[in-house]
Amino acid sequence: MKPDLSHEIEVVPAFYDIDPMEIVWHGHYVKYLERARTALLARHDYDYPKMRESGYGWPIVDMRLKYVKPARFGQRLTVRAEIVEWENRLRIEYLTTDTETGARLNKAYTIQVAVDLSNGEMQYLCPPILWQRLGVQA
Amino acid sequence: MKPDLSHEIEVVPAFYDIDPMEIVWHGHYVKYLERARTALLARHDYDYPKMRESGYGWPIVDMRLKYVKPARFGQRLTVRAEIVEWENRLRIEYLTTDTETGARLNKAYTIQVAVDLSNGEMQYLCPPILWQRLGVQA
Amino acid sequence: MKPDLSHEIEVVPAFYDIDPMEIVWHGHYVKYLERARTALLARHDYDYPKMRESGYGWPIVDMRLKYVKPARFGQRLTVRAEIVEWENRLRIEYLTTDTETGARLNKAYTIQVAVDLSNGEMQYLCPPILWQRLGVQA
Amino acid sequence: MKPDLSHEIEVVPAFYDIDPMEIVWHGHYVKYLERARTALLARHDYDYPKMRESGYGWPIVDMRLKYVKPARFGQRLTVRAEIVEWENRLRIEYLTTDTETGARLNKAYTIQVAVDLSNGEMQYLCPPILWQRLGVQA
Repeated sequence: MKPDLSHEIEVVPAFYDIDPMEIVWHGHYVKYLERARTALLARHDYDYPKMRESGYGWPIVDMRLKYVKPARFGQRLTVRAEIVEWENRLRIEYLTTDTETGARLNKAYTIQVAVDLSNGEMQYLCPPILWQRLGVQA
Repeated sequence: MKPDLSHEIEVVPAFYDIDPMEIVWHGHYVKYLERARTALLARHDYDYPKMRESGYGWPIVDMRLKYVKPARFGQRLTVRAEIVEWENRLRIEYLTTDTETGARLNKAYTIQVAVDLSNGEMQYLCPPILWQRLGVQA
Repeated sequence: MKPDLSHEIEVVPAFYDIDPMEIVWHGHYVKYLERARTALLARHDYDYPKMRESGYGWPIVDMRLKYVKPARFGQRLTVRAEIVEWENRLRIEYLTTDTETGARLNKAYTIQVAVDLSNGEMQYLCPPILWQRLGVQA
Repeated sequence: MKPDLSHEIEVVPAFYDIDPMEIVWHGHYVKYLERARTALLARHDYDYPKMRESGYGWPIVDMRLKYVKPARFGQRLTVRAEIVEWENRLRIEYLTTDTETGARLNKAYTIQVAVDLSNGEMQYLCPPILWQRLGVQA
């Protein structure tokens, strides 16, 4: 059976996320993605403290966000994150929608690579610990 | 003569920009890009208040950042922004380097489109006010 | 019957809230207070958009936070907010505790005054709309 | 001769610091204080990395901000920080003014205590390293 590599969270933009144009400032979506990614990886018992414990850091090396519609104060947003690559790098795709209407607001992806914390070396293959945690094969 | 459509600023990451891995959290670069873009557009007398005055908002619709090397607390960074498209949309490219060594840390771009603030309609051609301010032709 | 002027929310510090000392950077608590205050005021149908609609802004004029113990990544925090003054100014007190152990982490207050949005004038008495919404008497 | 224990920096609020009321969101001032404090302590060769090296962390245990006038996008602000206590705890006072007019916008203080990083114990007397760096006597 294929493991479920996706997860959804709800985010409600706070007052301090809203800019003078009365929409969520575009940079704050990066926080929403981080929250969704953290929840997804925590479900697979591989959140940030576990990563560190496993001897690897997982810096973001590439990130792209496409903004379709603006989000506003107090609007309920659903952020869905799904792992789509795990062999050489960890690629996660995100879709942010309005919780009530389902309207698409933002599409994004992040790419992370493993870095061996003992020597700072970037890994060109994801370490097996990732596959074990996700229940996948490389 | 071709107008100079680039600008450089210096940014020094503050303590609150540093994450537990002791590097600048990837999402904070979006702030550094914003600072460079604001300075560039201010030089052409078209910063955020002037945009609003001109009847247009310029939301970011696409943004991509590629992280080459991490940045650290107190490190002097040079962020260079350059306008490379202005006909249908405003595309700005960014290069963040270590001020002292010139080492490349981050490459990015942002794409903005004009939105008519009177009716919320997205413009498929940049409004002439942009070209006048930049001293370019469409 | 005395109206209930308190409210509790749960906050879980995100990765980007953690500093290099591996604790929540002290400035981020201001966001947690804002989230608790927003939820409390929303329960009384007087959140930020309703304030604006009522013709008043409510800027913070005084804020104090006392830090008892540090908070960490992923720790479940309970933030309790309670309105304790509403006559001349709106004073809210906050207590942040560890959700599991109840240990006190932070005590704070904020003081807001009403500003008439039509002329920018500070009000030396809270406007009656506040009392109606809270179900209190001045 | 009495050592100079004050320092001034200039801060210009960025777009992402401005809230829907078109003023700097009150929580962002904590960042401005941090920038001024960092610059002041760096001048005395005791910024965050040096603190760590000296074996002490200096968490904020108390912080108060009083907001006199709002600050706006692009406004040049002067933030002055001055060390006023260093015996048992480090107390720094801040004054934020409009650079051009000198108008007072914000008054604040922060209190830090030393924590021995080897055992996590709070120090009831500031460690001598602080006095040496500041050129003061306890």
